[in-house]
Amino acid sequence: MHESFNLDLEKNEGNYSPLSPTSLISWASDVYPDRLAVVYGECKQTWQETYTRCRQFASALRQLKVGYGDTVAIMAPNIPAMFEAHYGIPMSGAVINALNTRLDAGAIAFMLEHGGAKVFFVDREYRTVVNEALKKLEKKPYLVDIIDSSMPDMEPIAEVEYENFLKSGDSGFKWSLPNDEWDAIALSYTSGTTGDPKGVVTHHRGAYLNALGNVVTWTMPYFSRYLWTLPMFHCNGWCFPWTLAAVAGTSICLRRIEAQTIFRLIRDYDVTHMCGAPVVYNTLLNTSESDLQIGFSRVKGMIAGAAPPRSVIEGAEVIGIDLTHVYGLTEVYGPAAVCAQHPEWEQLSLEQRAQKNGRQGVRYVVQDGMEVLNGETMLPVPRDGRTMGEICFRGNITMKGYLKNPNATNEAFEGGWFRTGDLAVIDEFGYVTIKDRSKDIIISGGENISTIEIEDVLYEDDRILEAAVVAQSDEKWGEVPCAFVTLKSNEVALMESEVIDFCRERLARYKCPKRVVFGVLPKTSTGKIQKAILRDRLEQNK
Amino acid sequence: MHESFNLDLEKNEGNYSPLSPTSLISWASDVYPDRLAVVYGECKQTWQETYTRCRQFASALRQLKVGYGDTVAIMAPNIPAMFEAHYGIPMSGAVINALNTRLDAGAIAFMLEHGGAKVFFVDREYRTVVNEALKKLEKKPYLVDIIDSSMPDMEPIAEVEYENFLKSGDSGFKWSLPNDEWDAIALSYTSGTTGDPKGVVTHHRGAYLNALGNVVTWTMPYFSRYLWTLPMFHCNGWCFPWTLAAVAGTSICLRRIEAQTIFRLIRDYDVTHMCGAPVVYNTLLNTSESDLQIGFSRVKGMIAGAAPPRSVIEGAEVIGIDLTHVYGLTEVYGPAAVCAQHPEWEQLSLEQRAQKNGRQGVRYVVQDGMEVLNGETMLPVPRDGRTMGEICFRGNITMKGYLKNPNATNEAFEGGWFRTGDLAVIDEFGYVTIKDRSKDIIISGGENISTIEIEDVLYEDDRILEAAVVAQSDEKWGEVPCAFVTLKSNEVALMESEVIDFCRERLARYKCPKRVVFGVLPKTSTGKIQKAILRDRLEQNK
Repeated sequence: MHESFNLDLEKNEGNYSPLSPTSLISWASDVYPDRLAVVYGECKQTWQETYTRCRQFASALRQLKVGYGDTVAIMAPNIPAMFEAHYGIPMSGAVINALNTRLDAGAIAFMLEHGGAKVFFVDREYRTVVNEALKKLEKKPYLVDIIDSSMPDMEPIAEVEYENFLKSGDSGFKWSLPNDEWDAIALSYTSGTTGDPKGVVTHHRGAYLNALGNVVTWTMPYFSRYLWTLPMFHCNGWCFPWTLAAVAGTSICLRRIEAQTIFRLIRDYDVTHMCGAPVVYNTLLNTSESDLQIGFSRVKGMIAGAAPPRSVIEGAEVIGIDLTHVYGLTEVYGPAAVCAQHPEWEQLSLEQRAQKNGRQGVRYVVQDGMEVLNGETMLPVPRDGRTMGEICFRGNITMKGYLKNPNATNEAFEGGWFRTGDLAVIDEFGYVTIKDRSKDIIISGGENISTIEIEDVLYEDDRILEAAVVAQSDEKWGEVPCAFVTLKSNEVALMESEVIDFCRERLARYKCPKRVVFGVLPKTSTGKIQKAILRDRLEQNK
Repeated sequence: MHESFNLDLEKNEGNYSPLSPTSLISWASDVYPDRLAVVYGECKQTWQETYTRCRQFASALRQLKVGYGDTVAIMAPNIPAMFEAHYGIPMSGAVINALNTRLDAGAIAFMLEHGGAKVFFVDREYRTVVNEALKKLEKKPYLVDIIDSSMPDMEPIAEVEYENFLKSGDSGFKWSLPNDEWDAIALSYTSGTTGDPKGVVTHHRGAYLNALGNVVTWTMPYFSRYLWTLPMFHCNGWCFPWTLAAVAGTSICLRRIEAQTIFRLIRDYDVTHMCGAPVVYNTLLNTSESDLQIGFSRVKGMIAGAAPPRSVIEGAEVIGIDLTHVYGLTEVYGPAAVCAQHPEWEQLSLEQRAQKNGRQGVRYVVQDGMEVLNGETMLPVPRDGRTMGEICFRGNITMKGYLKNPNATNEAFEGGWFRTGDLAVIDEFGYVTIKDRSKDIIISGGENISTIEIEDVLYEDDRILEAAVVAQSDEKWGEVPCAFVTLKSNEVALMESEVIDFCRERLARYKCPKRVVFGVLPKTSTGKIQKAILRDRLEQNK
């Protein structure tokens, strides 16, 4: 029998299609042509209109001889053009390379050169830094200038303007799915703190599956109204530009993270869903009373980050945002783990709930495996909530690898898993809690100290707005913890000894910071505190 | 650049897994081990318990030297063993062949022989017909006897009983995903009205995608409580045994379609979802007042069938079941089209809503294409709601083909689409409405007459319970419509002329039945009226 189920039962045009999230926009446009796809200020576009524009986008790229395997870069905030690029570029066969809008000229030049972008879409707001970057390039990409009518008049960056670029394309363009679902859909550079950025290459198959995975994980209903508080340049907005087509939802675009604007949009568009790093929710929590009193229905929020402070999880719930905690990296298309909630938790106190929700959780249903492994044996650590290991992923929601960097790719997949570099424990329920980045962990007198654990304690002090702990070299212990602290604006000064005493009441003595430095913390464009810079400061001021 | 995105970026153990719905049960068991997976009478099993049993199931099959590419048949109603078979069999690498419980001995024997089942699980209720079937076989499969403790004592059919079979397996069995997601997962025989049944072969990839497609299409939340009113032998319960794992939902099992039991279970388990043919909902609608007054929260129901009578759609809404109309065939894993609803319809009258909902609708978001094509040119018919063509599907939710039947497979995929044989129109909104099976359509004086259109009119008569219209050969017109009608039990007799007059007030004269026959209608096990038998009767009584 063994062969009967394969004999004369091959793939054919009728029974096989490559998976691609580009298929989702044609569905949304076919079935719900008149529902709103994109909203931005005065601009309101239906799915049919958006699909037409994306076809023009793809066609216009083809007319520039850009297609299969070519890179197309874009640097824009969360505006309609950025959303359209997530369809228009892959529909042409090309690979979307969304650039972080806060990069410096050197990094932009590196990425354009390394990624080989043939076309570069630039929002005028970034013209200065982009012009500077372009000067460093021998071969410049074809530039398209994105004008946002809500912005003040600025110098153009290119002769071709985005709307005219679209007009040059054919609205009836017959695009096609990729030949192979393993073909690249996106190139995203990680903001490495050391060395050159690495170019994460993701594929159509994974983007499609994670787009559906978002719907399943979050039970997203049709016509969800999604507020773009998460940058689309960040892992392609965690695949949400594609997710929203699968449910014919509406993308409410947003140029800047401003509490007042966010609350107004939530109310005006009856927003149902939003995503972001802790810093986004922090902005909302630390807002004025009058902004908070605007009144809106409850919103579902996804929050990602190594470990969102408990205060954020609690605070969001109070102002009307029910947070789901997710975890991931660019290499796994954004979130690939979720702190899946249990109905029993509703009986717990807010604090206990925040503790449960603070864990990084379990794999997405579309991701095949997530384990905490001993980095050497590659065997799972015991589920005791204490033994540390490295979080590893396996499955379709994992990148192809790093562009033109086989060494980094091999290293990342060493042992048959994608190795995140995050150190964590796993508890009896199979839920993972991050303890540290492997490069952040402090080893003091042979003991591992989780910097996140110390930071959690610091955040319990009402006077502290932000905290980061890093290793400081020490002759006796090897390393000891040093805390960098930002105080809340309206607080009087706090003494170093007070902070240390506060920790001593709550932590084993060897885990307490030996030194406290006050001031503003350096952050990446996605709101992550840059510990490498803090470590450098310590080294320079020893 | 073109090659950079493929160079050193191959699939590896870490970034590629074959898609298979078997992956979903390990997720449910990992994340929600203590949630109920299966309920049946006194039996209540958690996901962890069910997963353990399925691993034993797969291991026990392997011990019988059954695995990759082997067929394992099962004939059982919607009881826990049937649910477990949907995991245990594919987890062993074998192909599940679920048999319709109403088949006769000849058909069973044909399927066992043609499909080559090595093991056959049989619920004792069917021992007589199965024993008769086995007598016809030269080589008998290994038999496993399923005992349902809620049933009266009956003769065993085999020496090995299901629970003992499970015990022989290893609960820690390390099963694996298929090597290739294109591998067969299920073999399902269509109840062809002429000729031998055809064995539809489906694959892991399609079953996985449709399992998620059900969640997206129906916005199924976690912990959905699903009542098994749809036979699991029918296209593997439209993939719902797998869907339920993706949302850690509960399967409420059901041996028989009885209104009283259904209403009781809906109330006791706070059922949220159910599926079935129109006959299931008809049973509920034509029940006694006291059953209806049992009181329950609103239920979401999927209904499939060539064209559910408007009265069912309306009636269900009144008693508390919100119907979603889906359409499909075994060849497309059950439903692959849905009458996707629009919020604007809520403003319409119940009757107008029923008309909108009565259409077969649009493709599932996971299915790549659904068109109404001219059967000769294979070009789409105009979207005028009048021009008939054949409904064709294309995409991943389409079978591999028919087992050991390359001619039928080639015919089904002729022209690069899966051809359903259903004739339909498509309206300006892109929604499809079936007019007839291609073999049922009546051609009278050169005009096509949709038998479904006439049946819809007949159902408007309060005295009529069921109606079926078929072609009767006619010397003058070629064919004319003949109506077969079942009256409601408490009705007095109805005259043939009254029925014809009723139609004449509502239909063009040439479409009205020329003859009316009263009596019970022959049906398939899934509740479809067997028009071929009615046509035979007419031929024999000319």
